[in-house]
Amino acid sequence: MSATRKPQVLKGFRDYLPEHMLLRQQVLGIIRDVFEKHGFEPLDTPALEYMEILTGKAGENEKLMYHFADQGEREVGLRYDLTVPLARVVAMHQNDFVLPFKRYHMAPVWRAEKPQRGRFREFWQCDADIVGPSSSLADAEAISVLTDALHAIGLSQAVVVINHRKLLSALAEMAGVSSDQAPMVYRSIDKLDKIGRDGVHADLTKNGVASDAADNILDIVTTKGSNDELLDMAATRLADYPNGVEAVQELRDLIDTIELLGVPKHAYRIDLALARGIDYYTGPVYEAVVEEPKVGSVAGGGRYDGLVGTFLGRDIPATGISLGIERILEVIQEFDLLPIRKSVADVFMVYVPDTLADASAIARELRSQGIRVDQSVLTNKGIGAQLKYADRRGIPFAVILGPDELARDEVSVKDLASGEQKTVERNLLPQELEVLLHP
Amino acid sequence: MSATRKPQVLKGFRDYLPEHMLLRQQVLGIIRDVFEKHGFEPLDTPALEYMEILTGKAGENEKLMYHFADQGEREVGLRYDLTVPLARVVAMHQNDFVLPFKRYHMAPVWRAEKPQRGRFREFWQCDADIVGPSSSLADAEAISVLTDALHAIGLSQAVVVINHRKLLSALAEMAGVSSDQAPMVYRSIDKLDKIGRDGVHADLTKNGVASDAADNILDIVTTKGSNDELLDMAATRLADYPNGVEAVQELRDLIDTIELLGVPKHAYRIDLALARGIDYYTGPVYEAVVEEPKVGSVAGGGRYDGLVGTFLGRDIPATGISLGIERILEVIQEFDLLPIRKSVADVFMVYVPDTLADASAIARELRSQGIRVDQSVLTNKGIGAQLKYADRRGIPFAVILGPDELARDEVSVKDLASGEQKTVERNLLPQELEVLLHP
Repeated sequence: MSATRKPQVLKGFRDYLPEHMLLRQQVLGIIRDVFEKHGFEPLDTPALEYMEILTGKAGENEKLMYHFADQGEREVGLRYDLTVPLARVVAMHQNDFVLPFKRYHMAPVWRAEKPQRGRFREFWQCDADIVGPSSSLADAEAISVLTDALHAIGLSQAVVVINHRKLLSALAEMAGVSSDQAPMVYRSIDKLDKIGRDGVHADLTKNGVASDAADNILDIVTTKGSNDELLDMAATRLADYPNGVEAVQELRDLIDTIELLGVPKHAYRIDLALARGIDYYTGPVYEAVVEEPKVGSVAGGGRYDGLVGTFLGRDIPATGISLGIERILEVIQEFDLLPIRKSVADVFMVYVPDTLADASAIARELRSQGIRVDQSVLTNKGIGAQLKYADRRGIPFAVILGPDELARDEVSVKDLASGEQKTVERNLLPQELEVLLHP
Repeated sequence: MSATRKPQVLKGFRDYLPEHMLLRQQVLGIIRDVFEKHGFEPLDTPALEYMEILTGKAGENEKLMYHFADQGEREVGLRYDLTVPLARVVAMHQNDFVLPFKRYHMAPVWRAEKPQRGRFREFWQCDADIVGPSSSLADAEAISVLTDALHAIGLSQAVVVINHRKLLSALAEMAGVSSDQAPMVYRSIDKLDKIGRDGVHADLTKNGVASDAADNILDIVTTKGSNDELLDMAATRLADYPNGVEAVQELRDLIDTIELLGVPKHAYRIDLALARGIDYYTGPVYEAVVEEPKVGSVAGGGRYDGLVGTFLGRDIPATGISLGIERILEVIQEFDLLPIRKSVADVFMVYVPDTLADASAIARELRSQGIRVDQSVLTNKGIGAQLKYADRRGIPFAVILGPDELARDEVSVKDLASGEQKTVERNLLPQELEVLLHP
């Protein structure tokens, strides 16, 4: 053994302690359940991939990749998202599954971001994607599973705001910039919320966009109205741009299909100012935002018909969503959206030296009935100290089997929050606890 | 987008495709349930740690660590087990929880091992540990949760073979080697199964152990008998070695306590030839082995009272177990220990253009009743082709809502395995499917 090392975690990383984990597992379980209810199949991939698999795909995100040469001098990287690995899987295992392939993936990803409040270098994503169809029904299904998941975790006020990568391309054409300059236009539009119309205008003209073109673009992205009104307006103003015409048509289809899938009207809307900064999107793009309380984006998604092709040589259409679980957990905690328990255990079985065998038998019986029993290992503490320990852990009830109780075929049950204690016939204990735990 | 990259995974890594994931999640769920039934709290830690946290602790395993300098020139490593991070957590968050601290941790770890059948460079461990008590009740509880977990996943024939690090130390003393040479003796003893008594004798004497000392050691570790007989024999033969005397006494306590906890007699036994090759163990050590069919070790554990102290400066006792999930999954598949499903979906809802809204409403209703419905996105395929697709996916039933059925308030339900199809009143569909899915 070596000398004492200071116990610490890397900047931007953190431990997930039990109280946080209990909530995290609850939320991941709810999301997993919604994904499975929609028939998405589970998939997992290695944390480490060949560096060349992870590069040239995802713009800004891949610049933040952790990468190194492994023991075999291979250049490897830690995955920074779950979408690029999916595309690699589809290209590699084409013969192992039939298309459409609907998969979900819930796992950590790593990005060496500048640490700041609520932003971590290791964080979990929950993705659900459909690979194969180019139909708007697949996009609508992705949005439907997203709104169902948000609803299930208590964020039913979230709104999915929808735009189209080709509509953004049309705006870039309108700005008179070449296609490799287009991301500059998207980034300017994306700042509308923060710097306002004048700010975006200045930003665009500073980058060489003509003033009247900037005005045209801003007229389009700042127009308010219903989905139909916005799409009618865009159809008129973008009539000369094939990309714009196509985007409007696809968005009309998408909006109609989302409605047919039964997604509530208030849960989605067109927003022509939305731009998502990921290179691989080719069709509809969207974000789920919580506006009241003002939380911002909690999920995103879109269509990326070219990504599988970078591995396969021929394109396979794909579309899907990604929930950012860290932000969602913060919101749930801040606004008490889900009940939070402090301990996994329902019952603490007190240690009494002479009754260990019978207490163990009771613990086993309770467990077989679905009750979670923490059997005390505090052999050097009296009953009072053990009860205090269980209460500090946040375990709601304690069961005590002293020699007298054992002789009478009874046990004592103590409510650790109220301090109330009662005697129960041993064979009635499971029912008694069921009532206490689920009143 | 870049030119086509060959889709591949790193040697020793693999994708977990849906059919495998469904089994993996089932097994992880069962183990999690057993851990929680015993009151172990969930914990997770970062995949990356400071290199100095991970070094000087775990002997051979840490030599296999993936490590590199990160963007901030910090030396970092991917965790190679879940025990060293636990010790770091306990030292760092002492004030966040009360001792005893019972935690479980189910997560991937990484070791750059030589790839071979059934051995991977990324694999999951399922650990449950108790930090705080030095009592044999804590060790017995760890063995109890281990045997419960193995039983729950269908491995009730597994036997926990138990030895004691101090008994091994006494054997090393008997061999006349210095304490830093002791691991050589353990490694020799560990080869008994493979190379036999004569092989181990040759191995020991080659390393400088006197022939009669080697014989004495081999007499001890090859003796057969009941737990009591083995411990009586060891008590006599090791009477001159304080470590041996202490080990025998602690093993007697442990065996008694395991029995009091209600662990079945056939599920554990003393084996004085067991040596586990991890540096940090200080007390009882054990492995769960499946002998019939001949599978070998599927889990291990032991007491490590000094590990937290390497971070904290003062020791905190700790004991716990680790299940190697990859081997267990292989065994479950090989011997059909659990039912394996091919698809997560219970029902495939066929796409029919004119009934999409009603089919979606039915899908939503079924989901709300707990049925997993994959709603078809195959807009360009007829009903026959869609049914074929669902059958290839392994989805057991399909629901068809054609315009005629819609008019009559009916749906068709098709058993995709048998080909049988029947018409059901729309409002009776959930009950009908319940019966079909859980006959």
